[in-house]
Amino acid sequence: MLTIDGLQYSNWSREIFEQMRAGGVSAVHATLVYHENTRETLSRFGDWNRRFEQHSDLIMPVYEAEDIQVAQEAGRIGIFFGAQNCSPIEDDIDMIEVMRRLGLMIMQLTYNNQSLLAAGCYEAEDSGVSRFGRQAIAEMNRVGMIIDMSHSSERSTLDAIELSSRPVIISHANPASFHPAKRNKSNAVLKAISESGGLLGFSVYPFHLKDGPDCTLESFCNMVVDTADLMGIDHIGIGTDLCQGQPQSVLDWMRNGRWSKEMDFGEGNKNNAGWPRPLSWFKDNRDFPAIIEGLRQKGFNETEIEKIMGLNWLNQLKIGTKPL
Amino acid sequence: MLTIDGLQYSNWSREIFEQMRAGGVSAVHATLVYHENTRETLSRFGDWNRRFEQHSDLIMPVYEAEDIQVAQEAGRIGIFFGAQNCSPIEDDIDMIEVMRRLGLMIMQLTYNNQSLLAAGCYEAEDSGVSRFGRQAIAEMNRVGMIIDMSHSSERSTLDAIELSSRPVIISHANPASFHPAKRNKSNAVLKAISESGGLLGFSVYPFHLKDGPDCTLESFCNMVVDTADLMGIDHIGIGTDLCQGQPQSVLDWMRNGRWSKEMDFGEGNKNNAGWPRPLSWFKDNRDFPAIIEGLRQKGFNETEIEKIMGLNWLNQLKIGTKPL
Repeated sequence: MLTIDGLQYSNWSREIFEQMRAGGVSAVHATLVYHENTRETLSRFGDWNRRFEQHSDLIMPVYEAEDIQVAQEAGRIGIFFGAQNCSPIEDDIDMIEVMRRLGLMIMQLTYNNQSLLAAGCYEAEDSGVSRFGRQAIAEMNRVGMIIDMSHSSERSTLDAIELSSRPVIISHANPASFHPAKRNKSNAVLKAISESGGLLGFSVYPFHLKDGPDCTLESFCNMVVDTADLMGIDHIGIGTDLCQGQPQSVLDWMRNGRWSKEMDFGEGNKNNAGWPRPLSWFKDNRDFPAIIEGLRQKGFNETEIEKIMGLNWLNQLKIGTKPL
Repeated sequence: MLTIDGLQYSNWSREIFEQMRAGGVSAVHATLVYHENTRETLSRFGDWNRRFEQHSDLIMPVYEAEDIQVAQEAGRIGIFFGAQNCSPIEDDIDMIEVMRRLGLMIMQLTYNNQSLLAAGCYEAEDSGVSRFGRQAIAEMNRVGMIIDMSHSSERSTLDAIELSSRPVIISHANPASFHPAKRNKSNAVLKAISESGGLLGFSVYPFHLKDGPDCTLESFCNMVVDTADLMGIDHIGIGTDLCQGQPQSVLDWMRNGRWSKEMDFGEGNKNNAGWPRPLSWFKDNRDFPAIIEGLRQKGFNETEIEKIMGLNWLNQLKIGTKPL
């Protein structure tokens, strides 16, 4: 079954790529950067080029949606890139096309904080999409870079959907109706995403789940059932937010970048500052079959499961990443 | 006739692109940068993306050699990119593959001065290819970025030819036997370039010509005849070094970058600090037919002229820019 994970940021290694293969993973949306500027983003591409060279038997880059099928036929896992923030383009709209050419297929307009483009989901004031944000959305539409609002605020997300001529996605989050986290999304946002032709990727990051690390597979799959009813079977997928093997320093970087002198704990708090304990039924890339089985138990048919597990993501890439 | 110019750095405009079309130009090696660092190089790609968007009826980018034929069939001029210096990669070998992906098909190891990779043709001491230079040559060979030694020193050029597993080129210069300028090349270098499978692109920049701006077309074509005898008909092409419409500030930037507080006059001097007066028979892109006619007068047959005017350059791009 074509299995596409709509977000991971792991401490990439041969072991992890082998686990992807063992878990039947066809392609992964790999986060390239959180707060890195343009120059630093190029070095993250450089890191990946080294991985592609060293592990060419396991992984290959995805520059166009069709490359996922090329990878599959070659028995390799396709890696496609996204940024969790707009930091790779700095203040320069020309960098959108440059980054797209390099393989950045997806970009979030914000990462929790206000950015040059929009407001993040942790801001007290949700100022919506900015002047530069409007220009950037039009340019992303033009060059075929998918707009991802996972870490953005409510109004900014609705603004982006209205401004964008192409579908807008939430690569990794869950419905707030399932678990009311700042990162999870209102039904209004989810319906608008679906109506834009976009997609929600379900997260298994414990902070996004009811009962946190104790969330059961059944509870997760009930959420999928409810969201399928809300958004439609063509607009949901997986976006695990899997961060395998990352040290605390990476979590601190995600949360604090270079913007804070005080420690910001993000979704955690002072007494719970570390990585969350993983789910019992989803620890790493080998556990995708568990999700497939959980969906079967809930009564989804095979066609529906194929859509959720990968075809909807493939379709998003096909319609979202071709230049206009 | 397929006409490829192996180097230009003009003050790009619609007028110039129209002149290219009028002159029957199929493709041009456009210099992207002289001293720009990695981040600045991205903005030069950004400038070109805007030109490709604005003048899409006249020009298109060349990312692979085959794109030149695509451009020709579309009635457009193909633009392929090179750097006159290794500044786009800074001190970071990973930037070679990143820049190649962005479309940098050709890179000089030095621009007149010593670089991190090799010695330039204006240095008193010719230290040859450096430690980083050896690594960079291997990486350029791997990813398919052509090594251009136009502004490099004698020993560095011979070193690079020996170290490189692929042909090495001189995109724009002339034989020193024709005119003994620092930028022109010894017969030993030219023979080694030819034996590597590489190419010399003949320059019409007056500083590289006997009698400077008064060099006649016949004198230029005699040089071509002599060089064809030395290097072979498959290893010569055109590399005009045409810098149309550039202000003095650009010449100063080429010569001084950020490295000199005193004004360096390059090939000129204090009393001759400006752009040279152009040749009477080659003023701009409309004058390529004059060169073709000059070569006919010298007795080259049509097959030979086709090689000199474009096929040899096309062949270099075909053999030099595919990843290993």
